[in-house]
Amino acid sequence: MAGREISQTVIGRLPRYYRYLGELQESGIERISSNALSRKMNVTASQIRQDLNNFGGFGQQGYGYNVEYLRSEIGNILGLNEVHNMIVMGAGNLGQALAKYSSFERSSFYVRGIFDHDPVYMNKEIRGIPIMMMSELEDFLKNNKIDIAALTIPRSAVNEVVELLIQYGVKAFLNFALIDLTLPYDVVVENVHMSDSLMRLSYNMIKFRDR
Amino acid sequence: MAGREISQTVIGRLPRYYRYLGELQESGIERISSNALSRKMNVTASQIRQDLNNFGGFGQQGYGYNVEYLRSEIGNILGLNEVHNMIVMGAGNLGQALAKYSSFERSSFYVRGIFDHDPVYMNKEIRGIPIMMMSELEDFLKNNKIDIAALTIPRSAVNEVVELLIQYGVKAFLNFALIDLTLPYDVVVENVHMSDSLMRLSYNMIKFRDR
Repeated sequence: MAGREISQTVIGRLPRYYRYLGELQESGIERISSNALSRKMNVTASQIRQDLNNFGGFGQQGYGYNVEYLRSEIGNILGLNEVHNMIVMGAGNLGQALAKYSSFERSSFYVRGIFDHDPVYMNKEIRGIPIMMMSELEDFLKNNKIDIAALTIPRSAVNEVVELLIQYGVKAFLNFALIDLTLPYDVVVENVHMSDSLMRLSYNMIKFRDR
Repeated sequence: MAGREISQTVIGRLPRYYRYLGELQESGIERISSNALSRKMNVTASQIRQDLNNFGGFGQQGYGYNVEYLRSEIGNILGLNEVHNMIVMGAGNLGQALAKYSSFERSSFYVRGIFDHDPVYMNKEIRGIPIMMMSELEDFLKNNKIDIAALTIPRSAVNEVVELLIQYGVKAFLNFALIDLTLPYDVVVENVHMSDSLMRLSYNMIKFRDR
């Protein structure tokens, strides 16, 4: 599979397939046609077939998809068959919320530590995950292989922290800070800019109202 | 402007323009060429010109953009010249984080109330914003015109709450719950699915590693 370039639009849809197939599995459904899956997911059956054909298909004509197999294959494509070690930068409400989402672990994303500079959090923990001081970050990174960092710190602090994290091998950022990261080509980012989302909502809401 | 259909890709970029222009304004910069803006934002100058031409242009050939004017016009397009009244469903860490973001108010999004069913939050408030019980929601909606609701409640609770909110005129949802909303055509949603973002990060990270 490696080397083939799949569009980010298709990749963007895979987590949703994974989620729906998980729900089907929980309901005890073993096999589903692309038509039934398409009705459930509100996309066309041909889009589903096209998307999955990017990865080799997974279905037999007229026989539908094996739910467990398809979910596990999509999970493998997404890299969920490996453990991902995460840290959360910032122990404020958002950082705490992330550390509390035990559901991330079901997709093999494990928060290994939370970092903050505020001594009020010293020696505290969340769901067994230690909150450490920023001064301990470098030692922690020397001793722990971390893949992913979630950034819930003020944007003025971001650049310096990101540089250090990259130096110690962090390859991916979930960025909540309202700043665009400048990253090496092999380091990836997903921005979660909630105020941008609110602005898009505002635009679309007004568009309907003023029609 | 109303009635013209602008692609969601262009709309998606407007909040970023708005943000950068705000930073320029804060640095006291009054005028900027599309070339300088393009270097700063890491997009091509021709993309900037194309995007802004969707709304009539705003610049004079060879003279650049007036930063304050352009920002204010983009703000108007995004509907930030109107006050948007929000509520936050769920007073957990994520709900509290949203209520604490005073920066939303700079773009005229005001959180007017937070709702939860857990009596532990009864009579509490966050930054002066009252936390109310779910049983008070209907009365609150009768007496307050709310445009936007942020959903930070468990997905099993979402459908019932959304139905009530729509009944009382809520037109937009910022949805953090891992469930796809089924909405009337004139009600809009922005999904913030953090576990989907993590999965995309995982895919892209592995793609680079296995190259």
